[in-house]
Amino acid sequence: MGVNYFRRDGRDSKFVLLEHLDVERLLSYAPYQDFSADEFVMIIDEALKMGKEVLGPALQDGDRIGCTYEGGKVSIPDAFKKCWRVLNENGWPAAAFNPEFGGQGLPAVVGGLAGEILRGANMSMMIYSGITVGNGHLIENFGTDQDRAMFLEKMYTGVWGGTMCLTEPDAGSDVGDVRTKAVPDPEAGDPRIYKIEGVKRFITGGEQDLTENIIHLLLARIEGGPAGTKGLSLFVVPKIWVNPDGSLGEPNDVFCAGIEHKMGMHACSTCTMNFGENGGCRGILLGEPHSGMAKMFQMMNHARIGTGVVAAGITASAYDTARIYAKERVQGAPLSDRNGPAVPIIQHEDVRRMLMNLKAGSEAMRVFAAYLLFNSDVAKHDPDELERQRARARVDILTPLVKAYPADLGWVLIRDAIQVLGGAGYCSDFPVEQYARDLKILSIFEGTNYIQSLDLVGRKIGAQGGKVFQEWVAELMAFANQNQADRDFRTDFELLSQAVDMVADFAQRFTGYFKQGRISLVPMFATRFLDSFAEAVMAKLMLEQGLIAREKLATVALASSDGVFYQGKVASAKFFCRNILTNVFGRHAALRTEDLSAMEIPEEAF
Amino acid sequence: MGVNYFRRDGRDSKFVLLEHLDVERLLSYAPYQDFSADEFVMIIDEALKMGKEVLGPALQDGDRIGCTYEGGKVSIPDAFKKCWRVLNENGWPAAAFNPEFGGQGLPAVVGGLAGEILRGANMSMMIYSGITVGNGHLIENFGTDQDRAMFLEKMYTGVWGGTMCLTEPDAGSDVGDVRTKAVPDPEAGDPRIYKIEGVKRFITGGEQDLTENIIHLLLARIEGGPAGTKGLSLFVVPKIWVNPDGSLGEPNDVFCAGIEHKMGMHACSTCTMNFGENGGCRGILLGEPHSGMAKMFQMMNHARIGTGVVAAGITASAYDTARIYAKERVQGAPLSDRNGPAVPIIQHEDVRRMLMNLKAGSEAMRVFAAYLLFNSDVAKHDPDELERQRARARVDILTPLVKAYPADLGWVLIRDAIQVLGGAGYCSDFPVEQYARDLKILSIFEGTNYIQSLDLVGRKIGAQGGKVFQEWVAELMAFANQNQADRDFRTDFELLSQAVDMVADFAQRFTGYFKQGRISLVPMFATRFLDSFAEAVMAKLMLEQGLIAREKLATVALASSDGVFYQGKVASAKFFCRNILTNVFGRHAALRTEDLSAMEIPEEAF
Repeated sequence: MGVNYFRRDGRDSKFVLLEHLDVERLLSYAPYQDFSADEFVMIIDEALKMGKEVLGPALQDGDRIGCTYEGGKVSIPDAFKKCWRVLNENGWPAAAFNPEFGGQGLPAVVGGLAGEILRGANMSMMIYSGITVGNGHLIENFGTDQDRAMFLEKMYTGVWGGTMCLTEPDAGSDVGDVRTKAVPDPEAGDPRIYKIEGVKRFITGGEQDLTENIIHLLLARIEGGPAGTKGLSLFVVPKIWVNPDGSLGEPNDVFCAGIEHKMGMHACSTCTMNFGENGGCRGILLGEPHSGMAKMFQMMNHARIGTGVVAAGITASAYDTARIYAKERVQGAPLSDRNGPAVPIIQHEDVRRMLMNLKAGSEAMRVFAAYLLFNSDVAKHDPDELERQRARARVDILTPLVKAYPADLGWVLIRDAIQVLGGAGYCSDFPVEQYARDLKILSIFEGTNYIQSLDLVGRKIGAQGGKVFQEWVAELMAFANQNQADRDFRTDFELLSQAVDMVADFAQRFTGYFKQGRISLVPMFATRFLDSFAEAVMAKLMLEQGLIAREKLATVALASSDGVFYQGKVASAKFFCRNILTNVFGRHAALRTEDLSAMEIPEEAF
Repeated sequence: MGVNYFRRDGRDSKFVLLEHLDVERLLSYAPYQDFSADEFVMIIDEALKMGKEVLGPALQDGDRIGCTYEGGKVSIPDAFKKCWRVLNENGWPAAAFNPEFGGQGLPAVVGGLAGEILRGANMSMMIYSGITVGNGHLIENFGTDQDRAMFLEKMYTGVWGGTMCLTEPDAGSDVGDVRTKAVPDPEAGDPRIYKIEGVKRFITGGEQDLTENIIHLLLARIEGGPAGTKGLSLFVVPKIWVNPDGSLGEPNDVFCAGIEHKMGMHACSTCTMNFGENGGCRGILLGEPHSGMAKMFQMMNHARIGTGVVAAGITASAYDTARIYAKERVQGAPLSDRNGPAVPIIQHEDVRRMLMNLKAGSEAMRVFAAYLLFNSDVAKHDPDELERQRARARVDILTPLVKAYPADLGWVLIRDAIQVLGGAGYCSDFPVEQYARDLKILSIFEGTNYIQSLDLVGRKIGAQGGKVFQEWVAELMAFANQNQADRDFRTDFELLSQAVDMVADFAQRFTGYFKQGRISLVPMFATRFLDSFAEAVMAKLMLEQGLIAREKLATVALASSDGVFYQGKVASAKFFCRNILTNVFGRHAALRTEDLSAMEIPEEAF
């Protein structure tokens, strides 16, 4: 049994929800009127308890025991089975989903902040639940009443699992190459039932022994359908067939041919799935034929925000492990008192710098993801149509950012957590090296980070004739200008102003490159544009927090727990701007060179 | 048995040695006069063969099987035993060591370039040999004739292993806290023989079953000796006692109490060692009492350059895996031809950018380490005293840079290698994720990267009244100015000039901070100063290579293998300056804020 290092302090999550974002506005929306701010706080506290008592203790077992495969069956570590049961008994997986079908109906932002805690405690475990309810949500949105009755409650309550089957051995980032095919099954007596045949790869949770059934959502091409993504249809393919009354029927012809051995996420099965090897796989068409990709994207967009939530959670957990270790470990004297006694290493300047990287970075990720989820609540429920549209546009443009940037920042920040622990950080007793390994998948799955940057420059920046992006630039700039003389954050607003100029210049140059036919320059700098834009938006959110914290500091004793927290918040805002946002200067210096050496070099020189 | 992915092309190593650095000068030195440039090329080729045929095939076994511990004994995977035998039969471990005692007497730079290939093929294996010969070298330098006769040849030829025992559970970065004690052994009849008692932790190769004996070099405090590092003495502590005639005696009281489970380097044992648990451990004092730290530093400095060599080797191997994969994997169309057919992913702009990061970054690491080793050859053998001194000073100031910077850059670059492979990069079939895990130790051992930055700002920058550093700044600046109108590299020399200004400003500000008593600002920005200085020096080396390659390009057919290589070299030089050196702009923007938020925040806010 591994050691439980999960020790999140939920104060910042509560600050984001109750002191930064507009929780009153959420509570005014019809579906949330029965909740209260106090209940939201209780939910955060319950998530902390779940993380500390249930999920955290299973983390290291998951890594060390991992999944095992034998003859088509996959076993998940025993500790995870207990987690799954308790998670579902307490309604966590579908906390922010429809209560009509077993969900708890929480606002997305509350579910997200609680989810970040749970994911930070045990990412492998939470991926099973995230994918199951995300899957169910697609059936909720696009299925018939009959589909909903057959599948939803079982999925939202964790009786059945779910998967998302896109990738194939020869169709990864290019989903349009999917070869899995579907043909109508004349014997079925139901025109929505098709026979399915194909192989899917990298299927998360494709096989497991947590649930009695697994509902695969699968992209396949109906025979004769158009080429590319436009010919893909979405099918519900249960591992065990589900009868119209919801009871289980015969096993479907679905076989797990093996699992991957991975860098991390050892307890999360990644499967190769054979559908219809023996000609007996059936699936139910979800919605119209050839409309699968758009539907899958709805889930994918949700999952992309979820990726940012996971990155925030894991990075925060790495921070927790590092800060607690740094307070306990005594070693050497700091440079500013070099002949003094040995002190806890948290008093060493460089250790403090690394901890601030982790603190400011993980807090910025947290509020960034929460801000998107808050806006997705607004987009769904605000009574004002314009407000809804505006919020929807904000979510859309920021989704590729929150998917990509925190995943890559996390890799660099967890390096610091390992470094704070020194040799102990390289050993597996502490989970910091596991956090790095678990996190690494985030830049790859749900669309690689480069695909996110193409989504940003190819679709999102041009949305509404560029209006959404321009509004962001204007808003960031106005915020910086408005506060340029601030007594504490003057430096930071000045940095923000310069960074926003650079971000705007990226976009302007890209427009020029498209016009001038110098298109290769766009993808060459697209990920750096995405990172810079993300840092500017996160800097704004952090500075908003800094201003709020400063105001509140005047009302509390400095030494009180709130006083200490607000001081920490002010420091995080400054540190983020001065040490992370400043990366934009380096990226923009690179952009100005308009370097194409990577394209000019002959391919054989690699 | 794992798959062998090692496919290094040695062209760049030969370019560094024969076309960039001054090999003729080396060959003019007395100890190297019997060598020829052709022989050096043969040695590189032999190293490639050893990597491909012997070390590479064992890499994945090492990771998957790892070391096992039982009752004080450590077993290393069988595949490694074969490697060890063949390595030593071919004289690799002591290739650049004294031929009088079984070494091959190669120049350090040739040994280093060959060693980078071997280390890139199998880091875990090569650490055993590196530590053994480094250890032997200390005995060669500081032992008596009798010591040399007893230990050296056995160590240089791999019959016996060696270790370096500094760290203790409560003495990590602060070596001065070492508690292991030594008392004269009156029964021994030799005043150099002491009884040793203490516990050492994180001892690489502390126990293994590769060699019949293990010679520990151990830091201990002779009872009554001064506190801190000034009271530490160095002892030779054999696992099995060695009789004066070199034959093996009784087992010494040395016990391996356990091994660590680590993120990577699974086949490299990391041991907790109990010395004298039963009162029967004997060691031989090496040199004068209380002079151990300085001696250990000689080895440490060599090991620090070696760390840069390893980082270069592993990053280059990650690059090799990624570039070969990218040429084979067909997926999607590039943005500049988005409606075109699917192409090998090496034609996608972002994949190419990532490959260039890996190519330019690993080449820069290679030449950086080789440049230091070349200078250490000059420092040892040049007939001109002033030249020797100058070269020694260069090695000294750059040693912390080559230890620290490539280790951290490697972490970010191997991320790109994983990303090029996508989902496959996260799986363990390919070794890229293993490279990331293996490499991570480099920023921690041999003195953490922060300790390197303190060595740089606390000792090296001030050496000779600041003269060595100022000469570097002047030389970099002169090189940039001299070439400011270059038709191909104008942009790059301009960037170098700006970056050097920033590097100089770092140092100038640090001097100010010391004077003004704002000392905390120094360690707060010290690692960023080190990284920036390293990038400036590496940019110079890369631009030198770019200029040479351009000149040679005029003499060969563009499509010839040399033509392709030189074009690649020109691209690497540009890419390094425009995409990696530009990071200095971000770090300097951070410096200008003189941010101390990490110190101002109350400790409890962490």
